[in-house]
Amino acid sequence: MASDEHWMSLAVTEAEKGIGLTSPNPPVGAIIVKNDTILGKGWHQMAGKPHAEREAIAMATEKHGKQGIQGATIYVTLEPCSTTGRTPACTDGIIEAGISHVCYGSKDPNPAHAGKADKILKEKGISVSRISDTQACDLLIRPFSKVQKTGLPWVILKSGMSLDGNITRPKGEGKWLTSEESRSYVQRLRHQSDAILTGGQTLRADDPALTIRDTSLPEKPQPWRMLVTQQCASNLPTNAQVFTDAYADRTLIQENGDLIASLNRLVNKGCNTVLVEAGGTLMASFLRAGLADEIAFFYAPLITGTPIPAIASLPHDIELMGQTYQRIGNDILLSALVVNDKKESHTE
Amino acid sequence: MASDEHWMSLAVTEAEKGIGLTSPNPPVGAIIVKNDTILGKGWHQMAGKPHAEREAIAMATEKHGKQGIQGATIYVTLEPCSTTGRTPACTDGIIEAGISHVCYGSKDPNPAHAGKADKILKEKGISVSRISDTQACDLLIRPFSKVQKTGLPWVILKSGMSLDGNITRPKGEGKWLTSEESRSYVQRLRHQSDAILTGGQTLRADDPALTIRDTSLPEKPQPWRMLVTQQCASNLPTNAQVFTDAYADRTLIQENGDLIASLNRLVNKGCNTVLVEAGGTLMASFLRAGLADEIAFFYAPLITGTPIPAIASLPHDIELMGQTYQRIGNDILLSALVVNDKKESHTE
Repeated sequence: MASDEHWMSLAVTEAEKGIGLTSPNPPVGAIIVKNDTILGKGWHQMAGKPHAEREAIAMATEKHGKQGIQGATIYVTLEPCSTTGRTPACTDGIIEAGISHVCYGSKDPNPAHAGKADKILKEKGISVSRISDTQACDLLIRPFSKVQKTGLPWVILKSGMSLDGNITRPKGEGKWLTSEESRSYVQRLRHQSDAILTGGQTLRADDPALTIRDTSLPEKPQPWRMLVTQQCASNLPTNAQVFTDAYADRTLIQENGDLIASLNRLVNKGCNTVLVEAGGTLMASFLRAGLADEIAFFYAPLITGTPIPAIASLPHDIELMGQTYQRIGNDILLSALVVNDKKESHTE
Repeated sequence: MASDEHWMSLAVTEAEKGIGLTSPNPPVGAIIVKNDTILGKGWHQMAGKPHAEREAIAMATEKHGKQGIQGATIYVTLEPCSTTGRTPACTDGIIEAGISHVCYGSKDPNPAHAGKADKILKEKGISVSRISDTQACDLLIRPFSKVQKTGLPWVILKSGMSLDGNITRPKGEGKWLTSEESRSYVQRLRHQSDAILTGGQTLRADDPALTIRDTSLPEKPQPWRMLVTQQCASNLPTNAQVFTDAYADRTLIQENGDLIASLNRLVNKGCNTVLVEAGGTLMASFLRAGLADEIAFFYAPLITGTPIPAIASLPHDIELMGQTYQRIGNDILLSALVVNDKKESHTE
């Protein structure tokens, strides 16, 4: 008999297919198992479409009939929903399907909902358990959890820099510091995000498109583009790509550099994950305000020694944890989580 | 039958035991093989002591007798020496031992010697070959080669910094930015070096000992300590550790910030490898002058946002190649080679 952890890891793999596609919902995966055999699997593909549990039940029923599914176990990365929203409650679906055991990973991050499914399912004689190590499941829903708990989105600071922490474009060496492979990887980061945020300064200097252009990635709407300017909107160049291209209706402007207002507006648009691609000043503002959750720093094999830092002046240090690194072309991508709860102790 | 490359990789492993111990000689390793069996192996342990070939021949002879070694092949990472220095020529030793084939890796980097062994050995009926991929062998002797070809030592810039390229010591968080594991790794870098170079500013600010204190590493003399000061020696603090500790006689002072003079003096002391542990200004001076060969940058999981850069202002970009990275405790160590031959094209 394979372990609960084994089946849950397959459910996580299902869920991962939905990363970047499901907002404002989280990505969720489900696997239905009976006698050590998978009867069905499913993942949540888009808000408004069936939840992972419903997808898995539909596949299992189609393949094995209503009888075949009776007495099975469903592994689902997130506690099943118990209320009817745009789709009917998953607890009802599980009960109707005759599933006899539910094993889930993360609790619903909304405290008002957490644990409700347990009660409803147990009343119908369905046993419920949770896996011991929920880390992989929690990771999947961290942007969703952040929104549920704080009303703010999960913010990733992305930067490409030299080994000495500067963002320059060497004279006569083209526009880019990092490699083509890194820029291609950034397309994936954009695809996993619901919005891309930058500053007026970057807009004026680079006129970036801030779009997903890698057609090999699953189709999704272009991310929202949020321009944060310290001044008023009329100071932004009206002929910039973000205002003139085919997705101009997905460009938002936030005046007076109000970061919280900009993030709240994106949450209201259904965004869970925001990718910040900006210069050192705006990066530092996010860190200083405790609004950054994660970093994705691409290091090019260069020392520039020029004083254009990827992160501008900060009044205190920012600690990071859980750092991972990988080679992307000739660059190195370092990812890490920002430790925000220690912020107070560092404030001067 | 194992390949030449296989046996040479074992010779490289032998040679590596001597890294940091053999200057002004290079580390060299040798393996003697007959009928697919190792008869003996050896490595050069210290200048003045027997060369790797002599060590391997001695072991093979002791174990298998003078007869046993006849007709064997010797794999040696560097072309055997053909002149008598502090020890007799290895070509003579090979001839006397009755070895019938010599396979070596790197050519002698001194053009006056390169290829001489081939001629001498072939005249005695000994066949000579070289392995096709000499990269691992060349890597072993790169500091020695640098000295042979340029009269300057191999210079490694070592720095510990935040992810945004700054060297700060957070208030109330102790002296160190990087982890204990990184500092322990720096002991190994010092052990592989013949000298440690720093600036007057670092001396005044940190009073570093610049010694090898890890007693688990093979015994060797403490590295030379070279203090480069922009002013005259009398401006340095006379009570600093480097002037008062048990190794004070291995401390040198270079006035007027003359980098080339300081490096020449170290070569004259028998140094092949110099580790620079200094602040951003001195680091930048080495890069600017094209005198740095390698970097070892330790990145701590911190963003400091403070303007104390690991590398001070440079007039042009410095390209790097062959970068490798590894996790050291919570830090990441990035090592790479400096591309110096492109320097001219970048000069403004």
